[in-house]
Parts: sequence; structure tokens; C-alpha cells
Amino acid sequence: MGKEEEIVDMIVNGPKNYLRNVSVDNVIFGYHQKELKVLLQRPRGIAKWMLPGGYIKRTETIDEAAKRIAKDRTGLDKLFLKQFLAFGSPSRIKDPSFTPKILSTLNELQIDEDHWMFDYFVSVCFYTLTEFSLVTPNGALYAEECQWWGIENIPPMLYDHGEMIEEALKALRLHIYHYPIGYELLPQKFTLPEIHTLYETILGKKLDSRNFSKKLMATGIIKKLDEQRNIGAHRAPYLYIFDKEVYDNALKEGLALII
Amino acid sequence: MGKEEEIVDMIVNGPKNYLRNVSVDNVIFGYHQKELKVLLQRPRGIAKWMLPGGYIKRTETIDEAAKRIAKDRTGLDKLFLKQFLAFGSPSRIKDPSFTPKILSTLNELQIDEDHWMFDYFVSVCFYTLTEFSLVTPNGALYAEECQWWGIENIPPMLYDHGEMIEEALKALRLHIYHYPIGYELLPQKFTLPEIHTLYETILGKKLDSRNFSKKLMATGIIKKLDEQRNIGAHRAPYLYIFDKEVYDNALKEGLALII
Repeated sequence: MGKEEEIVDMIVNGPKNYLRNVSVDNVIFGYHQKELKVLLQRPRGIAKWMLPGGYIKRTETIDEAAKRIAKDRTGLDKLFLKQFLAFGSPSRIKDPSFTPKILSTLNELQIDEDHWMFDYFVSVCFYTLTEFSLVTPNGALYAEECQWWGIENIPPMLYDHGEMIEEALKALRLHIYHYPIGYELLPQKFTLPEIHTLYETILGKKLDSRNFSKKLMATGIIKKLDEQRNIGAHRAPYLYIFDKEVYDNALKEGLALII
Repeated sequence: MGKEEEIVDMIVNGPKNYLRNVSVDNVIFGYHQKELKVLLQRPRGIAKWMLPGGYIKRTETIDEAAKRIAKDRTGLDKLFLKQFLAFGSPSRIKDPSFTPKILSTLNELQIDEDHWMFDYFVSVCFYTLTEFSLVTPNGALYAEECQWWGIENIPPMLYDHGEMIEEALKALRLHIYHYPIGYELLPQKFTLPEIHTLYETILGKKLDSRNFSKKLMATGIIKKLDEQRNIGAHRAPYLYIFDKEVYDNALKEGLALII
């Protein structure tokens, strides 16, 4: 089945192959040179934006569903997705501005307010963080646009998707103290100012640089190399790499990076 | 409707009133004098234990469902429930030791493996922490026993409920660094050794007591009173209270208690 046929099949035969009343949404954060952005899509004919999300196949776990959907929207299949919160209330997807018409126009299907897709859905939310220059944004079939938005500049969002972004950011900012976030966001060899800037961007605040470096080194997740980068006259900062073993263990067990 | 009739109605007419494919489970931690326990129930005729959990009514949010179920099992309705993770995979509730027979025997209802209650369920999990002497454990109708178990001594668990307890404990131990956990677990006026013991019990490790007190005071969530408790000759430690305003704000916004 092609992508479009798969979606028609989902609309018509949905509950045979997909779970009812529960779906996933992904908050895909992109980092690039001191900027933190989030990947959003705008459904055809609607003035609001939404997160990449979708239904869960009966044959997959919720993590697999989130991964499949993230891959569809970004082209990347090695994303580290972290579940952070489920949203569920009887009214959560009853936004009058997102009429079922969007999907109806897609294939001249009849979809009304009673359709299973507009029932009460609990959405299990995941976030991920990637180097955004690696991503080729690719909206769902019902999307007219799919692009990055700066997190300080989020457009009007459908349903509770604005709140999902806020909660994802809170979770990310809490996890950054306990998990090594950043492996995919920096070049393999990086300088202390580079990793310092990454943390400042994610936390949205200034961090004392001497204190930050000291605490980060104390966790053992980065190692100093006997190698410098020449960035100008008299400026050759040392390079660092992540210690993969310590890093992987910290991902599983957590660490306490206290900044 | 009485409790029993409500359950029969749920079994027979379930999907009309409850969500399909998504449920909630609660990890209810109890603290009392240096012990951390978890409330479990054992279904009739089964040698494994399970968490208090249940289905979500179409008229309630997931938080309301978790609260209703926690109240049914503990008698307490002011519990602070914190969502920590959703579990979902096609095989998660296919444990052959928990046959649908349990529910069948309940009211001579015919319930087989195809019944909606044994479909693929995503479970959204919450934890809570309470003073366990306040709780009157009250199992579900299908339960033969409902009691506290020490967290170092968990009995064989049904499905993925053992993993849920582990993940709840991980979440609690992470949150304790960021949220003020303990308001309900200590007397209104408490000593520094009392709150120190609470944190050590939850974290499962020793904490340097001078350093702990210093860091805790720095967060501003507790205030020293001009009042001492007499606990013996020459021993009269000062009493402290939570600063409710700082505490409530920290619950919402988080804090960084770094121990």
C-alpha cells in the first residue's frame, strides 16, 4: 500500500488496525547554532498549526508508533524519543476550527463529527532533540506546510498542542540535569564553549562558564583530548569528546549534572 | 448504582461508557517511620499481585480517573498524583496466569479472551506518596487481598506491573530533586533529622546531614520556627514548617534542590 492508500484505509477501516481512544504526538526539537526550534505542520485550509502525531497500530508498541511517525516527518530513523506526558480529557480534540472537513477533502470521504478519529483521544507525548540541519521536514498528507518554528515564536496551535510544547520544554529542561542530552547535537569533537552554548540555549538562561565546565567534567561524560582547534591568532581551545560508555550508562541510569 | 452493579455494567456495556485501549494504573507509595512501601492487591485465585488500576470514563480526564481509583483503594481523596509514564505494547496484558476467569467468576458473566477488557491496553501510570498510617487498604471487587509491601520485597507481579513500580521509583527519585515531596509525609512541625530521614528513605541512600540541611534551607521551602521539641535531656531540636507559598510555587514551577 502507498502512503495515501494507507491513510484512506486508516480512515475507513481504522479500528481494525489501530487502537481506539489513544494516539501519540511528537515534539521534535531542533538545535542549530544557538537556536532551539520545533517542527510543526499546518493542515490544509486551517490557520492553526499542529504537532506531528498519529495513531498506534495494533502490532506496534507506543514507542514504535512514535518512532515511525517521527521518521515520516523528519526522514531520520535513529532519533532518541523520550516520553514525557500523556494528555487526556473529553474535550481535548474538540476544536471547532479543525473540522473533519480537512480529512474529507483528502479523498472525498465522508467524515463527520461522530467518526472514530474525532472521539476522545488520550495522546501519549514524546519529545526528541536533533541537529536540525539534518532534517528534511515532510508534512503529513493533510498538511499544507511543515516547517521549523523558533520556540520563542510559536504560532497559534490546534487543540492542546501548545501546552504539549510547553510541557515538553519543561521535561527537556529537567532531564538535562539528569541525562546526557547533546550527543547528537554537537560535532564529534567539540569545545567547551560549544557545549556550554548548547546548555544555555536549551535552558534559556545564562550559565556561569567556569562552574558549568567544572560540573560537567565531574560527571565523567566528556573527555578532554590532546588536540586543539585553531580558531584564530592565539585562540586554540582544547577539543572534547563524549565518553560513549559513561554516556550510555548515564542515559539508562541517569546522572546528576548539577549546574 | 452500587459498586458491584457498576462493575457488572462496565464489563457488559464497557465501551459505551469507558475508553477502549487505554487505562490507568497507580503506584501508591506509603511512607512511615523510615519505611517506603507500595499498595498492591492480589486477584482472587491468582498467585500474582497487581497495582490498583482501572478504566477511564468517557466523562472524566485521565487525572480524574487516576484520582477516583486511588480514592477507591485508599479512602483518601486529596492525594497528589503525578503521572510518570505510559506503558503500551501488543503483548502487555497477555499473561496466561491471569485468565479472564477471575472476572467471570465475579458475576457468572461470560468473559473470554476476545473480551474488550483483554484487548491491547495502553496504561497511563501515576504515582503518589502518602503517610501510610492514614490509608485503609481496600481492594477491588475481584481482589482477595490488598496490602502494603516493602519496596525491597515486592512479590511476583502480573503483567508489566513490576516494571511500573521500578519506573515509578525512578521518577520519584528524580522528582525529589526538583519538586518538594514530603508535605503530606511529615507532621506539620518537624525536625531536620525527620525530613533528612524521609529523603534518605526515598532515595535509598545515606545523605550527608549538614550538607542536606544547608541545601534544603537554601531552597526556601522550609522555615525554622522559634520553637523546640523536647526529646530528652539536653536534646531539644528546633522545629521547622513548610513555607506553603514557596512550596506551592515549587510544585508548579519546580525547584532545584541539589543534594
